Order: sequence, then structure tokens, then C-alpha cells
Amino acid sequence: MKETRFFYAPNAASQNQLPPEEATHAIRVLRIKPGDEIFLMDGQGSFHRAEVESVTSKHCFYRLTETLPQQPAWHGRIHLAIAPTKDAGRMEWLAEKAVEIGIDEISFLECRFSERRTMRTERIERIVVSAMKQSRKPWKPQVNPMIPFNDFIARAHPSLSFICHCYNEIPRADLFAEITKPQESQSDITILVGPEGDFSIDEVNQAMDCGFISATLGQSRLRTETAGLSAVVYSQLARRILD
Amino acid sequence: MKETRFFYAPNAASQNQLPPEEATHAIRVLRIKPGDEIFLMDGQGSFHRAEVESVTSKHCFYRLTETLPQQPAWHGRIHLAIAPTKDAGRMEWLAEKAVEIGIDEISFLECRFSERRTMRTERIERIVVSAMKQSRKPWKPQVNPMIPFNDFIARAHPSLSFICHCYNEIPRADLFAEITKPQESQSDITILVGPEGDFSIDEVNQAMDCGFISATLGQSRLRTETAGLSAVVYSQLARRILD
Repeated sequence: MKETRFFYAPNAASQNQLPPEEATHAIRVLRIKPGDEIFLMDGQGSFHRAEVESVTSKHCFYRLTETLPQQPAWHGRIHLAIAPTKDAGRMEWLAEKAVEIGIDEISFLECRFSERRTMRTERIERIVVSAMKQSRKPWKPQVNPMIPFNDFIARAHPSLSFICHCYNEIPRADLFAEITKPQESQSDITILVGPEGDFSIDEVNQAMDCGFISATLGQSRLRTETAGLSAVVYSQLARRILD
Repeated sequence: MKETRFFYAPNAASQNQLPPEEATHAIRVLRIKPGDEIFLMDGQGSFHRAEVESVTSKHCFYRLTETLPQQPAWHGRIHLAIAPTKDAGRMEWLAEKAVEIGIDEISFLECRFSERRTMRTERIERIVVSAMKQSRKPWKPQVNPMIPFNDFIARAHPSLSFICHCYNEIPRADLFAEITKPQESQSDITILVGPEGDFSIDEVNQAMDCGFISATLGQSRLRTETAGLSAVVYSQLARRILD
């Protein structure tokens, strides 16, 4: 049985050829031939069945045969905003895992104690697309460029918003308990996770002034990327739509 | 303020010097001096405060000043048994994250469709100790050598035991719903996660014959290590003891 081939084609329905990078992969690696069936993921909620019509050295032309709109697997939007770790690899790992588990948006924050103040989001974007294909997610998660902490919290956040931190002296709600409250079962969720040295106390207070709820992920002492991933798993458990 | 130094010393209370590897690290990297205060983690539930008495080129002698028994952070034992991925790095990552989040025992299974049939658990052991120190876990998680799937399931498992798999044709309980049932709130949990190509249908049936519950982690299509980590996060949420 031939394995189904999935490609990311953001404008699948209005185009008749694969985007350049996907075409190269299709032609050189997968050796796609005219007549082959392929699946296009538009990243906007639909998969499309298509038949390959012709292949040149750089182009792969197709004809759509069926559009398959997908159902959301969870309620609301899940948005993680995190201060990237010094080791960029840990953020790449987080991006891959967060997409597999299910997320709508990832932002990177520049904080008072950030150990990394620049972030190549093109690389994260590629990892996100690859994880989206691998885990067959109908919607492409949005990756935002790095932004100063204050600019991020000052924006309107029409969602249940949390700042997770480790200061015992600031009262903290239990994140999982908060997002699983029955009256909030479909709200969007935004969760802030700080750098290795945590947010500053000022940052926590500023976020609370902007409507963010001071929260804890639990008793464990977690690395930044592990905290980010735990927040995504908690959010999925709270918002998932059961089969 | 001087940072607190944590060392893993399995027999902290009956010894008066750090184990060789920790001693080397203490002397060469941290430049510990007589009079310094150190913390010893015995991996058996206690931290010990100690004062360094003398240091040679290879030995670091201490005197215990206080034993601090720790409270468990979760109920029951959490045991993940997983078929290692082809890429050993993915298992090392999983071991680190599972320890941070909280686990009692990790086993490696050799399955019908395993892509990796040998596993250097010494390396996993080192990662587990390092993550235990970093995340200040009072108990050292146990790492078991690789074992054939059939041998593992044939053992007595006096716990709530699950086999997670992707076969739609075999009825599956929802793992999170099962482990959060009020009447099971303190039971030990054992969870089996298969290799990249999943367990075989025979393996699933054999495990069910041995009392394992057929289960799903949810709708998402997860890589092996992501499935393993999700299972650990679910178990923690189900068994954690709130502050």
C-alpha cells in the first residue's frame, strides 16, 4: 500500500501547483509522478485530495479532486507566550511538541531577565509546519516574532489570560483548576511563561494590572520549555473535544 | 548570595564523603571549600544539610548538620513503560522531562515493531540523576533495563495499568478520564506506550489479557516520546498533591 503524501499548500484551493519548497521535496525526495494521489493541507481547516497532473524539474501541478473540511479538535484558541531559553534548541523542541499536542499561537517575549533577546522565528516556523504535517493538524499555528514583554501585555487579550511564575509571595491560582472551571469551558486561553530566571516581580504585577491572572503550574520546579509544554497539555485537557 | 549546591549522595547519612563523580564536580567545577554548606539528596526521600570538612584532589568530606525529610508531591507510583525510539536522543529528552514533571519508574520495552532493540540505560540513568537534582526531586526515579514486551506484561502489576495505542477497531478508554476517577485517586499507575509503528494488535490483546486497559491519550497523532510525556503529565494532574 502506498503511503499517503501530505503537503502544506496554504492556497491549495486557488492554486494548481505545490509551493516551491514542497514541490522540490515532492519531486526529488518522494519522486511523485503524474497520476499519484496527494493530500494538501491548507493550514486553514481543510485537507484537499488532489491528483498530480504533471511534474517538471521544479514544479508539481495538481488537480483538486475533493475538499475535506476538518472539525476542530478543541474549543477556543490556545496561545502560549514564552521567553525563549538561552539554548534555542529547547525552543525548537517546544515548538514541535506544542504543535503535536495542539496549539493555536506561539509568541516569544523579551523580558527583564531574558537570556536570549533575539529569536529566528523562520526556523521555528519551519518546525511548526513540519510538526503540523506530521501530526495532521488542519490549522497552522501562528508564530509571532519576538516582542517586548510590556508591549505584549498591553495589547487587548480577549481571553482567559495567565502569567505563570514561581514567587511564593504573590498569591497564585492553580492554572489547571482555573481553566477547567465549567463556566470557562470554551474560552480562549493565553499563558505567559518566563525565562530561566523567571519574570521579575514588577513584570508579574504589571501583567496582573493588565488583567492576567497570577498562576502556578504546580509544585514541580520546571525548566522554561517544560513549563511551556505543561501549560499546553493542561490547556488541551481543558479544551479538547472528545471523539 | 551564594547559590545552594545540591549533590546526589545515595548513602548520604551513612557516609562522610561525596560519591566520586559528585566529588570531582564539587572540587573541580564548583571549587567547594572547607566550611561551605552543601545539600545532599539521597534519592530516598530526604535532603541533608552538610558542612564541608576537608577537600583533597579527589575527595570531599562532609559532616551532616541536619536531615530534612521531604513530603511526597503525588499519590501512588507513576510508571511509564515505553518502546524506545530509533533516535535515542528523543528518549533522553523524554527521560529529562518526565523526571522534571514527576515520575517514579521508567521501563523500556522491546516490541514487535520496535525500531530500537538495544538501549544504553546508563546514559538515561545519568540524565535522570541530573534532572532529579535540577528539579529537586526527593526520590530518584528507577530506570529499568530493556525487557521484552511479553516479559513485562506477564509480571504482576498491582496498579491501574494501561496500554495506549492507535487502533480504532479496539475499544479504548480515555486515559485521563480513567485515572481521574475519584475511587482511583491514589492508585499506582502503569502506562505502556508503543514504538513509532505502534504495538501490534496481538500485543494489545495480550496486554489486555494480562489486565491492562486499552486506552487512548486523545485525538492527537503524537510521536512516541510526546505520547510518553503526555501520559506522565496526565498522571501528575491525576495524582498530584496540591500545596
